[in-house]
Amino acid sequence: MRVLVTGAGGFVGRAVLRALRGRHEAIALDQTLAGIDGIEGDLRDRAQLERALGKACDAVIHLATVAGGAAERDPVLAWQVNVEASCALLDMAASRFPGIRVVYASSIAVFGEPLPEPFDEQAPVAPTMLYGAHKAMVETWLATRTRRSDLRGIALRLPGIVARPRAPSGLASAFLSDLFHALRAGERVELPVSPQATTLLMSVDRAAANLVHALESELSGTWTLPAQHVRLAQLVDAISSRAGADSSRVSWRPDAALERRFGRLPPLAAPRALAAGFSADPSLDELVRLA
Amino acid sequence: MRVLVTGAGGFVGRAVLRALRGRHEAIALDQTLAGIDGIEGDLRDRAQLERALGKACDAVIHLATVAGGAAERDPVLAWQVNVEASCALLDMAASRFPGIRVVYASSIAVFGEPLPEPFDEQAPVAPTMLYGAHKAMVETWLATRTRRSDLRGIALRLPGIVARPRAPSGLASAFLSDLFHALRAGERVELPVSPQATTLLMSVDRAAANLVHALESELSGTWTLPAQHVRLAQLVDAISSRAGADSSRVSWRPDAALERRFGRLPPLAAPRALAAGFSADPSLDELVRLA
Repeated sequence: MRVLVTGAGGFVGRAVLRALRGRHEAIALDQTLAGIDGIEGDLRDRAQLERALGKACDAVIHLATVAGGAAERDPVLAWQVNVEASCALLDMAASRFPGIRVVYASSIAVFGEPLPEPFDEQAPVAPTMLYGAHKAMVETWLATRTRRSDLRGIALRLPGIVARPRAPSGLASAFLSDLFHALRAGERVELPVSPQATTLLMSVDRAAANLVHALESELSGTWTLPAQHVRLAQLVDAISSRAGADSSRVSWRPDAALERRFGRLPPLAAPRALAAGFSADPSLDELVRLA
Repeated sequence: MRVLVTGAGGFVGRAVLRALRGRHEAIALDQTLAGIDGIEGDLRDRAQLERALGKACDAVIHLATVAGGAAERDPVLAWQVNVEASCALLDMAASRFPGIRVVYASSIAVFGEPLPEPFDEQAPVAPTMLYGAHKAMVETWLATRTRRSDLRGIALRLPGIVARPRAPSGLASAFLSDLFHALRAGERVELPVSPQATTLLMSVDRAAANLVHALESELSGTWTLPAQHVRLAQLVDAISSRAGADSSRVSWRPDAALERRFGRLPPLAAPRALAAGFSADPSLDELVRLA
């Protein structure tokens, strides 16, 4: 398949390009591609989108987004990219290539905070961050266009993906990725959550594998991906022991807001997604190895 | 309260202005107001919105929309009005008047077709028309802004409202309103559905009363309004007997698509909305009297 990948220059995008290699032809699109072959351009530029879709396109993996914290800091840009340009891309793809496969990277941010307990893949959508609302709105648009047979859409709600590069991602949860880098580099790190904090994580390679599974499947609808439920103290131990690092270099200084948002995530039951072939990293150690 | 009413020149808007009279100060906004005092302007014009909100505004009743069939015919305009301008209005209202009350007129179109049976007020959102998707997306935006305490929003999902004026409303369901006018005028009418067709209806005065009840309540969230479940043959009888008209002037020529979309609506169970003080017309005869 010829697959347009938006946000291809990003952390998840690069992993998706790797996962597609040898299986499909990828067209990479991003604002900056830094060495990757593809088209550099803004998602809001319709002419650029036309060019990226090209004369023949079988599928789109739509990753480009203005994420959580960045969306709160620039709501206008976030709306333009996350809602307007995203829906315009779906409309354009559907109109140019009726029935085109579209894989949309959504987020567990659609569930808002605090997450319900018990937390189930079918929990009601109740976003609290603008980003979560944007993702929920595009899920609705994608599902509607799918019901109308304009395209064949599937949305995957991703948990926290690690370990993102240290470059600013705009994500308020960046400290989770920074923890990996700091421990591996033998640096001191101060965490804004407690050792008892719990979160839901996935390695970037696992995220890419799930997106490609969605691409190649006949599935439709909206799926909440299974994820590793991780206690922060365990995560520190797992990274330290793998990297031969000293876990005492980690200090804990919980910030009430971050602890509430990123440190109280309950385990997620996702039997439907598991049965459909989606998967979490099989263990914390495996997650740490791949992250 | 000083209440901005968008779409105030429309069929439901005029009824809302009547219902507000003597209770609240209404600022009417619409493209054309035809004799009503207020501000004429396009909802997409931000400067006009600023002016309409004025220096002090306690609440917004947001009715302006590009409805069902019209949205299908002009998806670009519908997106601009129903999603972009609607969310921009919410953002502007929240930013200018934090905590402002917002009553949003949504639609049972969010449930798509066919409707689930049994049909319950909490049925899953699964739009099939663009209009229904737009309404569901703005519901999400309103609920998110409400969760964040940016505003105090409430969304009401309206059923078919009768009897709209004969002027083109853009609604594919216009035949339901036209039936009232034709029988009252002693004219022949051909219906594109069967006598066995069933639908969900509300008189315009009841719709306005429900919107004002929402305005004055402390309720939040999204509510599916109770409605009269009507069999078309019964509706013809009720209108004819009230108007002293000859029901044999009605002929039936079912169109498969319209019968499917507007003629197979199951009864709606809405105990939660009823308990919160929302109401259907108490009887078919009362609906016909008020419509």
